[in-house]
Amino acid sequence: MKPSIPKGTRDFSSAELAKRNYIFETVKEAFQLFGFEPIETPSFENSSTLMGKYGEEGDRLIFKILNSGDYLRKVDDTLYQEKDANKMTAKISEKALRYDLTVPFARYVVQHQNEIVFPFKRYQIQPVWRADRPQKGRFREFFQCDADVVGSESLWQEVEFVQLYDEVFSKLGLKKTLIKINNRKILSGIAEIIGAKDKLIDFTVALDKLDKIGVEGVLKEMRTKEIPEAALSKLMPLFSLSGTNREQLTSLTELLSSSEEGLKGIQELTFVIDQVEMLGLQTSSLELDLTLARGLNYYTGAIFEVQADGVQMGSIGGGGRYDDLTGIFGLKDISGVGISFGLDRIYLVMEELELFANTPNPGPQVLFINFGDAEAKYVMQAMKFLRNAGVRSEMYPSATKLKKQMNYANNKQIPFVVLVGEEEMAQGSFKLKNMLSGEQSTCNKDELIRLIGS
Amino acid sequence: MKPSIPKGTRDFSSAELAKRNYIFETVKEAFQLFGFEPIETPSFENSSTLMGKYGEEGDRLIFKILNSGDYLRKVDDTLYQEKDANKMTAKISEKALRYDLTVPFARYVVQHQNEIVFPFKRYQIQPVWRADRPQKGRFREFFQCDADVVGSESLWQEVEFVQLYDEVFSKLGLKKTLIKINNRKILSGIAEIIGAKDKLIDFTVALDKLDKIGVEGVLKEMRTKEIPEAALSKLMPLFSLSGTNREQLTSLTELLSSSEEGLKGIQELTFVIDQVEMLGLQTSSLELDLTLARGLNYYTGAIFEVQADGVQMGSIGGGGRYDDLTGIFGLKDISGVGISFGLDRIYLVMEELELFANTPNPGPQVLFINFGDAEAKYVMQAMKFLRNAGVRSEMYPSATKLKKQMNYANNKQIPFVVLVGEEEMAQGSFKLKNMLSGEQSTCNKDELIRLIGS
Repeated sequence: MKPSIPKGTRDFSSAELAKRNYIFETVKEAFQLFGFEPIETPSFENSSTLMGKYGEEGDRLIFKILNSGDYLRKVDDTLYQEKDANKMTAKISEKALRYDLTVPFARYVVQHQNEIVFPFKRYQIQPVWRADRPQKGRFREFFQCDADVVGSESLWQEVEFVQLYDEVFSKLGLKKTLIKINNRKILSGIAEIIGAKDKLIDFTVALDKLDKIGVEGVLKEMRTKEIPEAALSKLMPLFSLSGTNREQLTSLTELLSSSEEGLKGIQELTFVIDQVEMLGLQTSSLELDLTLARGLNYYTGAIFEVQADGVQMGSIGGGGRYDDLTGIFGLKDISGVGISFGLDRIYLVMEELELFANTPNPGPQVLFINFGDAEAKYVMQAMKFLRNAGVRSEMYPSATKLKKQMNYANNKQIPFVVLVGEEEMAQGSFKLKNMLSGEQSTCNKDELIRLIGS
Repeated sequence: MKPSIPKGTRDFSSAELAKRNYIFETVKEAFQLFGFEPIETPSFENSSTLMGKYGEEGDRLIFKILNSGDYLRKVDDTLYQEKDANKMTAKISEKALRYDLTVPFARYVVQHQNEIVFPFKRYQIQPVWRADRPQKGRFREFFQCDADVVGSESLWQEVEFVQLYDEVFSKLGLKKTLIKINNRKILSGIAEIIGAKDKLIDFTVALDKLDKIGVEGVLKEMRTKEIPEAALSKLMPLFSLSGTNREQLTSLTELLSSSEEGLKGIQELTFVIDQVEMLGLQTSSLELDLTLARGLNYYTGAIFEVQADGVQMGSIGGGGRYDDLTGIFGLKDISGVGISFGLDRIYLVMEELELFANTPNPGPQVLFINFGDAEAKYVMQAMKFLRNAGVRSEMYPSATKLKKQMNYANNKQIPFVVLVGEEEMAQGSFKLKNMLSGEQSTCNKDELIRLIGS
């Protein structure tokens, strides 16, 4: 039987990794350009660190690791007799695989609070694991990629995160990327004004669907959640906001004039939008989207979401400000703001838009044909010289048929092949073949480097 | 209670990652220079892929992942009543964390045999997990780093792996690294000659301890394993082999003249040693070590082990040739050869020898002091310019006390600080302070890039 891998997981070939690593490296470089530094945390955490942090659904989707040794010994017989998996888990499993990077980051900040220099700007690119049902574009093992600043309330961070998104997507060749922004305080303000503050979640969940179900759909859903008619009619002006970001904010200021929190939200958003406009973006645009909610329970200020232009593909990034991330581990009142990149989706977008054309290929640049030990000795000396000059080189390991060796070069898309026979050895030369053009030339060692390395 | 991480696991700060990534990148570059390409496999495999591949001890040390959902439902009551962890595991766990990179690699080769171009030269740098007792330098999560070629019996591969070790350790600044080499066929030949072929394992396990327990100790251990006196006396010339690698091989040829396998081993070793000598090594040396056995059951030809000079630290690399790696998954007769790098030990060696001095620091190169929004706006424009030129820049997010901001730069070891007040804004200039020398100068944007970027 042919071996296989667990569903929802992936093997990556070198061709796929070249493209993935290109994305990873581009993001990393941008993070560093903006002063972020990396941390890494273990793949598994104590279960107590993770459980209860992602809701009931999340708890179910966390991969638990079985204790080592005679793990049933510690289970008392009464509980054992119940044969209840839910109760058993905590007794036979003490560790669990990382479910996201946010909770381990919060744990890290609290655990290392005395070594950390605040404000703490960190990025983290590591795999996470979820026992989700696998489907197209959704995996049980996938990389997350986060950058956060904790320990500062300054809105300049929000401005920089918009610039950071723009930097990454511009470098990757994506054009007209849409960075949507909202503010939780505005959503609270609207709910307050229309008298539905106790229904904030229902209200925003419905509002978030405006794109998909239209105004009527949203109103219908709000009615089923028992948001009163009077509130809904007060909401109508919101749906007809138009114009530039600033024009919309001006209209909104009137609407929210009696909500202190709402006005605070407008003020924050205005600052971010004004500064971004002043600084200018390379290829992206920043757009106010009052329906944007994302993980509302979590965010307390700015909310971000990013969409690629010209491709149907959900969000390729998101984030926002939160005011109490580390509170769950006992460190209160640390404000933070962060963004993430959806690496798998960015990969798919780039495939679809054919943006991988210029991805550096780290494969060998030249294959030396092997005609036997005498020629191989000559070739090994030349390869030493080429590698010294940074040219990625390999020799076919055995003196098999030329056609087989040429096929090897073709299949691996090695751009150059070098053939060395008695004549070349006598002259101290090399016959170089360009595999793309078919062109052949005879040259010396220095010319090899120049021709292959360029 | 302060949160913590599972024993045997580690958090990595950016300072540690800068050093670790420096090692990783150096190794990767060398792999690519020699024509190896990366693959990655999932963190967990089907249990059937891993179990039974590492012996009983290995099976115990594999981390098993609990099935999701109501995992007890499928356990039949009779078995459940036994409350036997050993029998239960297979019923409640179908997946397990990767224990090494070798078995997943074999699985990969067999699974993808129709897509792979043979000879297949791959490298892989990924974490593995072992439920070992944690101790100094031994972790439950650690990175392995392997390069292998499968599908060719050519001894040029062995020659290239010696060069590859030399390349990596020379680049890292290690000097006089000792690459020890042996050949399984020679060990078999010796066992054959002395009439202890049925005790090959006992024989080599004892021989492997020569360094630690001396000739007398080795003989004593062999006696307890019931290797006959007659055999032991035939062994004596082996302990007095001396001279260069070639001189030892010559003496050995006489000793093994009646063993076909032994002579084959000498022939193989001679080829590798001769070619390496001809090509020359940068800083390492290659040394024949007839006591070297490592995972003998596994290796069929060359055996490698690497030791750092001037530091007490076990082996920092090892490998060898194997003839049937993929046989366990049904693909027979694929010869392979590979090496690995002990990344954690290399890290410790480099710390001890203080070789991290020139490690690139990917942290911010300059901190802009924040004196308020007006100055911040000016600074943000300058940072945009600097980042565009590749200078890693950050601004302190809020206009807090100067001393606090300067401390931030000091603690993060940011080499330059820029101060902008009314005067600088009026002049379009910047006050640049070198944090190491204390030197201050006033300059424009272009000079900033030149002074900081150099």
